[in-house]
Amino acid sequence: MEKDPLEVRPIIWDGSVLSLLDQRLLPAQEMYVVCFNETEVAKCIKDMVVRGAPAIGVAAAYGMVLAARSQVFFPGRQIEGENSPDYLAEGLRLAAEMLIETRPTAVNLAWAVQRILDKFETMTGAEPVQILKELMLEADKIYLEDIAANEQIGKWGAELIPDGSTILTHCNAGALATAGYGTALGVIRSAYAQGKNIRVFADETRPYLQGARLTAWELQKEGIPVTLIVDSAAGYYMHKKMIHAVLVGADRVAANGDTANKIGTYMLAVLAKENNIPFYVALPLSTFDFSLESGKDIIVEERDPGEITHLKDIPLTPPGINVGNPAFDITPASLITAFITENGVIHNPDREKILALNR
Amino acid sequence: MEKDPLEVRPIIWDGSVLSLLDQRLLPAQEMYVVCFNETEVAKCIKDMVVRGAPAIGVAAAYGMVLAARSQVFFPGRQIEGENSPDYLAEGLRLAAEMLIETRPTAVNLAWAVQRILDKFETMTGAEPVQILKELMLEADKIYLEDIAANEQIGKWGAELIPDGSTILTHCNAGALATAGYGTALGVIRSAYAQGKNIRVFADETRPYLQGARLTAWELQKEGIPVTLIVDSAAGYYMHKKMIHAVLVGADRVAANGDTANKIGTYMLAVLAKENNIPFYVALPLSTFDFSLESGKDIIVEERDPGEITHLKDIPLTPPGINVGNPAFDITPASLITAFITENGVIHNPDREKILALNR
Repeated sequence: MEKDPLEVRPIIWDGSVLSLLDQRLLPAQEMYVVCFNETEVAKCIKDMVVRGAPAIGVAAAYGMVLAARSQVFFPGRQIEGENSPDYLAEGLRLAAEMLIETRPTAVNLAWAVQRILDKFETMTGAEPVQILKELMLEADKIYLEDIAANEQIGKWGAELIPDGSTILTHCNAGALATAGYGTALGVIRSAYAQGKNIRVFADETRPYLQGARLTAWELQKEGIPVTLIVDSAAGYYMHKKMIHAVLVGADRVAANGDTANKIGTYMLAVLAKENNIPFYVALPLSTFDFSLESGKDIIVEERDPGEITHLKDIPLTPPGINVGNPAFDITPASLITAFITENGVIHNPDREKILALNR
Repeated sequence: MEKDPLEVRPIIWDGSVLSLLDQRLLPAQEMYVVCFNETEVAKCIKDMVVRGAPAIGVAAAYGMVLAARSQVFFPGRQIEGENSPDYLAEGLRLAAEMLIETRPTAVNLAWAVQRILDKFETMTGAEPVQILKELMLEADKIYLEDIAANEQIGKWGAELIPDGSTILTHCNAGALATAGYGTALGVIRSAYAQGKNIRVFADETRPYLQGARLTAWELQKEGIPVTLIVDSAAGYYMHKKMIHAVLVGADRVAANGDTANKIGTYMLAVLAKENNIPFYVALPLSTFDFSLESGKDIIVEERDPGEITHLKDIPLTPPGINVGNPAFDITPASLITAFITENGVIHNPDREKILALNR
């Protein structure tokens, strides 16, 4: 019997509260943070209780549902100085603003919030409770579509991974970064499930150590052989011809294919090119942002210096040191061998091919 | 008045014991480990109390002196099953073996030990106390020559650094990695002392965090502006054209110019090439190893997985995870813009140019 693809459940909606697996505590502890309202969801996204572009999109959709519920049952709640009687519309507008502000780079966040707002627009004149029900169904759809897209990405992607491959991955583009299957790790899961002999090298991914804490944990749970390395050792193993493909996720992709992903992704793409290794980006179509011409337009989130200067409470640097902590970088489309999406694979991506697949 | 170039003293020989600044405790504490014999010196090198190719060379030379002293005053000490009456020769042979085994990649270690052995060879028939005195003077010469070489490297190198440059460095090739001035950081110190407006980006350098702990500390002490980044962010800043030169040290360079240095150096060289940024390696001539044809012959030290899986006693990964922890990588000569040595600069290095400068 096939394994339950959702062995790892980062996001659980039980129809009443949103439980988020606290990814800050992994792998030491498996604990959930329970969110009763949209403010708690926003805080969890900001603080990286939940992270990964598709996952924060799904979480934000439920955050919108919680905001709607609040206005349906307690009209006017937390809306100050507001004279419009349309508390539901206003509550959703404020929640959308708050949720989108939490992380500027991942596009799925804004995309998912917009889907809830769009659904709301179609319901003008309906009963508030009916609207709430429809928004909840829409969030469930986003959740289920993400899993379905991931599984489809896995199927397309597995075709690109020959038996006996060693794959390098960066950060965590796994179950934890999505509704529960994974983009880059979804491809690896899928290839492995087909019986292919697959090995993974996982970059530890400083400063937040998503590779060391999350990817290593996910792959270990699945029994897929994984070797953890420091980020700067990726080139060493590529140069030694021990890596056959690089496979990562994405946080936002511009219309021309320039790709924002976890800091260090650009470095891997350049090293892959230098060593003639294919460089694949696995992503749902919701990660494309056609409003941006190229990577130059993508805003890169700068995070707290404390992520670099301290580990837990231990100082790693002299006090008062100046720190640069960009959370993402931009990989030019020219360095990307192929995008792997739920609609198929885009080889040597460019604007036209990307548009064609998104139609 | 010019600043004392030896504000940072990683190695202090007082004529009787060897005090090594414990670099594992920096920047939190400035403590010295005092070594009374060669075994303690070997342990300090192995455990990275002292690190950096030139510094461990100097430390090992004094380790040899301590071994000689032991045999001069207590003949036969710690030499088991030995029937030769020439305890001094045997003691030095055993000490040399033990010291060289501690770290396989840095060539300066074997080079310095050999210099002491060569000196010993020239003293055949001399009084043991006279031999000890000469070996001590030879170790002092290695120490002082390293500082002089560093200062000369600094002068040649500073000519390559235009006013207003931002320089990226990796690991610590500073005072702490040498007898007290630095190779790559020596160049930066020298350019800064000339009044040039210099900024430094320092890679934190996982897993041992030499950049975060040591380079940041050294530059902060000197008042040279420094920004600390994670290793994988180097490409981001290069791509944004915020870096004008990359400047690193070296642990061993083969006859053709292939260079072993801290893991991550190769990655920087590839990124520098991709972004048309000069990539400089600053090193004393003692770092060249003409017994090796190319980088393929350089042994790369694999260190304890615990350096990656734990920070102090905090586990960073799930238990039982497989780890790759190469301490160095090999940068092909073709990626190196120039070597900066005490004898001058070697642009577009190759075997002939390197040989010519070493003559």
